[in-house]
Amino acid sequence: MTEKGKKHENFSEWYNQVIEKANLTDKRYPVKGMNIWTPYGWKLMSLIDAETRRLIEKADHQEVKFPLLIPEEEFQKEADHIKGFGDEVYWVSHAGSTKLDVPLLLRPTSETAMYPIFDLWIRSHADLPLKIYQMVNVFRYETKQTRAFMRMREIHFFEAHTCHVTKEDAEAQIKQDLEIMDSLAKKLCMPYLKLKRTDWDKFPGAHYSVGGDALLPTGRLLQIAGIHQYLTNFSEAYDITFEGVDGEHLPVHQTTYGMSERLIGAVVAMHGDDNGVVLPPTIAPIQVRIIPILYGENQELMDYCDKIKNRLSDTRVDIDDREDIRPGSKFFDSEEKGIPIRIDVGNRELENKELTLVRRDTGDKTTIPLSELETALQELMNKMQDEMYQRAKEFLHKNIVEPEDISDIKEEKIYRIGWCGTLRCGEGIEESTDRNLLGTLYEGEEFKGKCLWCDKETDTAAYLCNTH
Amino acid sequence: MTEKGKKHENFSEWYNQVIEKANLTDKRYPVKGMNIWTPYGWKLMSLIDAETRRLIEKADHQEVKFPLLIPEEEFQKEADHIKGFGDEVYWVSHAGSTKLDVPLLLRPTSETAMYPIFDLWIRSHADLPLKIYQMVNVFRYETKQTRAFMRMREIHFFEAHTCHVTKEDAEAQIKQDLEIMDSLAKKLCMPYLKLKRTDWDKFPGAHYSVGGDALLPTGRLLQIAGIHQYLTNFSEAYDITFEGVDGEHLPVHQTTYGMSERLIGAVVAMHGDDNGVVLPPTIAPIQVRIIPILYGENQELMDYCDKIKNRLSDTRVDIDDREDIRPGSKFFDSEEKGIPIRIDVGNRELENKELTLVRRDTGDKTTIPLSELETALQELMNKMQDEMYQRAKEFLHKNIVEPEDISDIKEEKIYRIGWCGTLRCGEGIEESTDRNLLGTLYEGEEFKGKCLWCDKETDTAAYLCNTH
Repeated sequence: MTEKGKKHENFSEWYNQVIEKANLTDKRYPVKGMNIWTPYGWKLMSLIDAETRRLIEKADHQEVKFPLLIPEEEFQKEADHIKGFGDEVYWVSHAGSTKLDVPLLLRPTSETAMYPIFDLWIRSHADLPLKIYQMVNVFRYETKQTRAFMRMREIHFFEAHTCHVTKEDAEAQIKQDLEIMDSLAKKLCMPYLKLKRTDWDKFPGAHYSVGGDALLPTGRLLQIAGIHQYLTNFSEAYDITFEGVDGEHLPVHQTTYGMSERLIGAVVAMHGDDNGVVLPPTIAPIQVRIIPILYGENQELMDYCDKIKNRLSDTRVDIDDREDIRPGSKFFDSEEKGIPIRIDVGNRELENKELTLVRRDTGDKTTIPLSELETALQELMNKMQDEMYQRAKEFLHKNIVEPEDISDIKEEKIYRIGWCGTLRCGEGIEESTDRNLLGTLYEGEEFKGKCLWCDKETDTAAYLCNTH
Repeated sequence: MTEKGKKHENFSEWYNQVIEKANLTDKRYPVKGMNIWTPYGWKLMSLIDAETRRLIEKADHQEVKFPLLIPEEEFQKEADHIKGFGDEVYWVSHAGSTKLDVPLLLRPTSETAMYPIFDLWIRSHADLPLKIYQMVNVFRYETKQTRAFMRMREIHFFEAHTCHVTKEDAEAQIKQDLEIMDSLAKKLCMPYLKLKRTDWDKFPGAHYSVGGDALLPTGRLLQIAGIHQYLTNFSEAYDITFEGVDGEHLPVHQTTYGMSERLIGAVVAMHGDDNGVVLPPTIAPIQVRIIPILYGENQELMDYCDKIKNRLSDTRVDIDDREDIRPGSKFFDSEEKGIPIRIDVGNRELENKELTLVRRDTGDKTTIPLSELETALQELMNKMQDEMYQRAKEFLHKNIVEPEDISDIKEEKIYRIGWCGTLRCGEGIEESTDRNLLGTLYEGEEFKGKCLWCDKETDTAAYLCNTH
């Protein structure tokens, strides 16, 4: 197995290989940064999307779909926004051989497509809050090296947009978004930090941004969610107003919540091992694979496998009944795909009316009587789910360290440092450590210390780390 | 109601109005031919998509997603295909201020995105059949007048693509596609003709095309599905081969099956009336709306409504509990949205432990005891579904007429005519009647007659009609 990329020796190589072996995406499409969603990869994304949909609809958001193409003029109304995205947008100039009257761009995100319409949807305060979301493809002309799921030019994107009467309502929305993110993170076994970004690193046009940052085994953070307080920055540019009680027209307060296929990238990176990806049971396209340990024909054994499968109608289960493949190869295949639980069924199991459950993450084997199938399996999946989450959480917290001095900052870790809050000191720290100051904990925390750059006393702790 | 468009007086005006009143789409987006999917419209589309997904996955197709952007070079490999679509594609030339090395186009359909990759996915005959589908946005620069759901420039599109060892396997696939279409058509209450297109009207690059054509109340046909036999036309251009038993490389046989948001357009046009749209129960986002006939506060009545709703957990049901709206306005609103069944609950119903069911399509009212709620409601929805389908089917067949002579062809009907099968006569008929020769029945039929143009004896009947 020497040709295999080892996770802890060469992360990039390993990451590319496990994704290819699991067949989660096909990178051979002839446009850089645009991959093909294979059946297996798309099924995984769909299961994550379904969970997102469930959570966001419970929070009274409604699904919509806005057009992909945005007229140049609409895009340019919010000055910071165009500054932030201007260099990365794809432009449509012609249709057939006709030059378009107005150049159109492919959405990099949908503020500028939606907001001119929001004003038509909102008349009075009875129309608020407006809470909508969409799941669409967005386009960003990334100039950095692209990487499957993590940095793409066509991105599968979730975006929720809300409008509120007051700033307080918008703040409450942000709290709700973070609760949704917490629920989703548990399903993905993907703990994360909620970091309120520095002013120079917030979303273009936002008043403030909260990044959901997951720590990968590389010791670098990957942003997997962005939740933004816009105040009235966009509503003033796009004239989105409602009629207040005295008949005056007031700008709405807005928030957004964005996520993408990066969720898959984070899960693969965090939980995969040298044998392949490891998927959490809640989102795995195949939760359980039954493998008959066959040498030659054995109809009785196959019937036994069918019987097991039929009892698991609430589970995403299949049988690897390929005839010309040895059991060992089937085990490898199941591991490469990250299937959480394998059920091995050989002659011994058949005779004793038992079956052997194998956990993908730990390799632990348990033999159980057939009569306990449903309960034992459900318990094992729950346990695996919990333990995967806990392991990742321990990894995250173990890697947050406090440097004595700026010269201690050498490793790939998350550094918790004192920061006086000024741009000057922030830039000084970022430049001298060649790391990103990712912000302060959204929920706040107790801190007493000195700014790592100017030594001034401060009660603000900030988080410094390399990013993917 | 004089300002209302009447269906049988001004179809176009009526169609636009009922769609707007039901809030199925928002046409105010500032790019022509690109509308916004509202929550109600998108929910309707999602329910149709879910049914399509169920049927196509039962037929062993797997869902994928290919990139939106196609390199010019790939697009141009199949000559007829580029000829058919060349004038309608949107071109991306720049990203930011960078001119792209290779011009990219927005897919009008995905043959040319997928087929260069299919060759990588298919090695031997063990990889066949390959059956995949995707649901994506496609783009066509329509120069004709655009119309919501029927003729758009950004289109919500379903496309299934298959590869087979033999022509016979591909033919069997086409039969299976048409069976799926039959099932779906029943759910949509939308009967249709399966017409094998003339050679000059087939899909660009196809060997033959079968159009699924629905008759609208205008007397014109609307194509709602396209099923295509490609033979090896594309596989030869894109070099999609498999290794045969003797080690030789043979081109695969291919088919496609396409549908779009036109399904919604057809249902609205067929079943709507002067009070609004009428949705078939199987696909209606709200199947049942409970309307409390309230004058002032009445907690007991509201509790009774809640009780009814809670018993209908398998049904998409809501309560119109808006306080400042009169029951009459609530009835109108429910009608405009096309909600199949209304449950009216007033004091009489409360006292007698009854409820009144009102059918959207016929307006029929039935009062039933509360104890029969679930059964009576299910029966009524089934009956409504069947009768809507039957009515549309009768309308379709009643409007197929056989002209004695070419001079009889004046009305908006489907004309069944004799045709010798030649291009010359086909063109003669089309030009002199200013109608489209849409082809012959896919399933074949008995016919003895004369070609309407050259008078030669023929056993081929063709269908002539105006189209939307």
